[in-house]
Amino acid sequence: MLEKTIREIGGLDEGAMQKARERLDSLIKPPQSLGRLEELAVLLAGITGQPRPQVKERAVIVMAGDHGVVEEGVSVAPQEVTLQMLPAFLKGVAGIGVLSRLAGARLVVVDVGVASSVSVPGVLDYKVRCGTGNIARGPAMTREEAIRALTAGITAAREEIERGADLLALGDMGIGNTTPSSAILTVFSGCPAGEATGRGTLVNDEIWRRKVRVVEQAIAVNRPDPEDGLDVLAKVGGLEIAGLAGVILGAAAARKPVLLDGFITTAAALVAARLAPGARQFMIAAHLSAEKGHALMLRLLGLKPMLHLEMRLGEGTGAVLGMHLVEAAVRIINEMWSFHEAQVSELIEEKILK
Amino acid sequence: MLEKTIREIGGLDEGAMQKARERLDSLIKPPQSLGRLEELAVLLAGITGQPRPQVKERAVIVMAGDHGVVEEGVSVAPQEVTLQMLPAFLKGVAGIGVLSRLAGARLVVVDVGVASSVSVPGVLDYKVRCGTGNIARGPAMTREEAIRALTAGITAAREEIERGADLLALGDMGIGNTTPSSAILTVFSGCPAGEATGRGTLVNDEIWRRKVRVVEQAIAVNRPDPEDGLDVLAKVGGLEIAGLAGVILGAAAARKPVLLDGFITTAAALVAARLAPGARQFMIAAHLSAEKGHALMLRLLGLKPMLHLEMRLGEGTGAVLGMHLVEAAVRIINEMWSFHEAQVSELIEEKILK
Repeated sequence: MLEKTIREIGGLDEGAMQKARERLDSLIKPPQSLGRLEELAVLLAGITGQPRPQVKERAVIVMAGDHGVVEEGVSVAPQEVTLQMLPAFLKGVAGIGVLSRLAGARLVVVDVGVASSVSVPGVLDYKVRCGTGNIARGPAMTREEAIRALTAGITAAREEIERGADLLALGDMGIGNTTPSSAILTVFSGCPAGEATGRGTLVNDEIWRRKVRVVEQAIAVNRPDPEDGLDVLAKVGGLEIAGLAGVILGAAAARKPVLLDGFITTAAALVAARLAPGARQFMIAAHLSAEKGHALMLRLLGLKPMLHLEMRLGEGTGAVLGMHLVEAAVRIINEMWSFHEAQVSELIEEKILK
Repeated sequence: MLEKTIREIGGLDEGAMQKARERLDSLIKPPQSLGRLEELAVLLAGITGQPRPQVKERAVIVMAGDHGVVEEGVSVAPQEVTLQMLPAFLKGVAGIGVLSRLAGARLVVVDVGVASSVSVPGVLDYKVRCGTGNIARGPAMTREEAIRALTAGITAAREEIERGADLLALGDMGIGNTTPSSAILTVFSGCPAGEATGRGTLVNDEIWRRKVRVVEQAIAVNRPDPEDGLDVLAKVGGLEIAGLAGVILGAAAARKPVLLDGFITTAAALVAARLAPGARQFMIAAHLSAEKGHALMLRLLGLKPMLHLEMRLGEGTGAVLGMHLVEAAVRIINEMWSFHEAQVSELIEEKILK
């Protein structure tokens, strides 16, 4: 299913994009004066093949997984928090519950690797294994397991799209997951681990230095091949990161736009883009996280974030805030009138447009 | 009325802010991990005096005026566009019409100085005069007229607040209005006119150089006193800029938050902050405009923009997009649960919070 999905990922529809550009330039405003909202409208036209794209139903897919590397003391919160947060997500009282409700998005929570045999009612059970191995001592998972987690993401994306979603957002939950994300960034960027490693949640100087050493050790021990996305994912990644990369691939194959959240989901985007370079065109960078390294990830992907809110919660909270901006782009191209339609004088149209 | 309004502007409610901070720190997330949304929630508590602030009804007030300085050839579009756009605003088919509908905000259009005797049905008529004088040759308006335009803004803000609005946004319409806005920034910042002057709409190198010379000339001819906000406004400002400064003062006096848009409305904010330094605390910077100089304006005010969309349309389009983020901040503090409420274990609460 993974290979088939990757093969299905096509390019943007240049014809629809050209028509969208022409429409935008005819509207009663100076050309390009709505900046990135216009670029977004053109991108949505290219993704959907509709010169006047629509985005109706939305879903945010939150992938949860645990990380063996927490035994190295890289995280302040205990591992059990991953599991404990899931009921709060479903009750709608955690950050993503509140903000997905505001965005009008269905919240889908997937257990792809929580370190517990407890299953939480309402959480989709695609568990591949109970947490990864400790990447400081060996691989996070086998190549096989990485493929299963990717496939879980593809499946989750497909199910939401079949249910009607035409805009997806990504979210993550996993204590310790900034460490594998930093490792992924270090491998793909080639920059020192210290530059790719941030503080995650509440990490002090001492734990930060330990985190950097753990990232260096994970790469030294596992020797992931930066040209092989699956190798990087299996050796120094995470189960929820794999699931999220799968959601991106599934969305891209179905020609649906997918909003990235912060550091973890963008690590997944780096993996997805390595597995299928064409997938990048279906990604939208919602916000710039406060987590060090996120800006570098977005630069590697050639994406520009829209919101600068210094958020670092994850869960998809930044991604769902971006849905409003996608909606704004869609409204602009569909609801604004052209100079001609608004009967603003031809003279003015000429002066403004030419 | 101007002086009375300025006297009414108070400080933020520190008690409500402290309670809001405590509530935010008790919620099921790492402290401060929602970044600027949390800061915004605290600010809203300080503005409204409610530890759990609410924002229900919203309005965007678009002030329209013309500028005598267009006779210097600083603008590409003809002056008549100011008037011509007003019916399009009211029909809901211009940028602000579409985006204010998306934001759920009432759109109020005020003629405070359009250079025409035609009155557009549905536009509030607070016209002080038909366009300003040419600032390259003399003052934009008299001190008296500036006060009348400020008062129009205060009145418009009050009317909306009486109608129920508890969140205001600012918008502008006025061909040529980046030139007086650049002059205002030059005066208040003390930086060279070339640094405060951008390209506005479709301005090429030649027109840009002319604009810079016109700004320098306006300051040389009028000698505005940077310590006297009213003097700067009357000599090198604009009628809609005065109206917008009045809206800010009116909102601040009534303890309502007010969202800034781009270059023009932030020039008005500089004036309002000079007239009443306390007004600054009621301002929220929605977005960073593509217009050169906007970043400097926001720095002078000590404000950080939330959206980076490279927009430069004006009309309030960026400001109303910020309403969604204000709503997000309000939802977070009102709808998220605390660790205690969510029954996440005390052990975890302790580890995460302490």
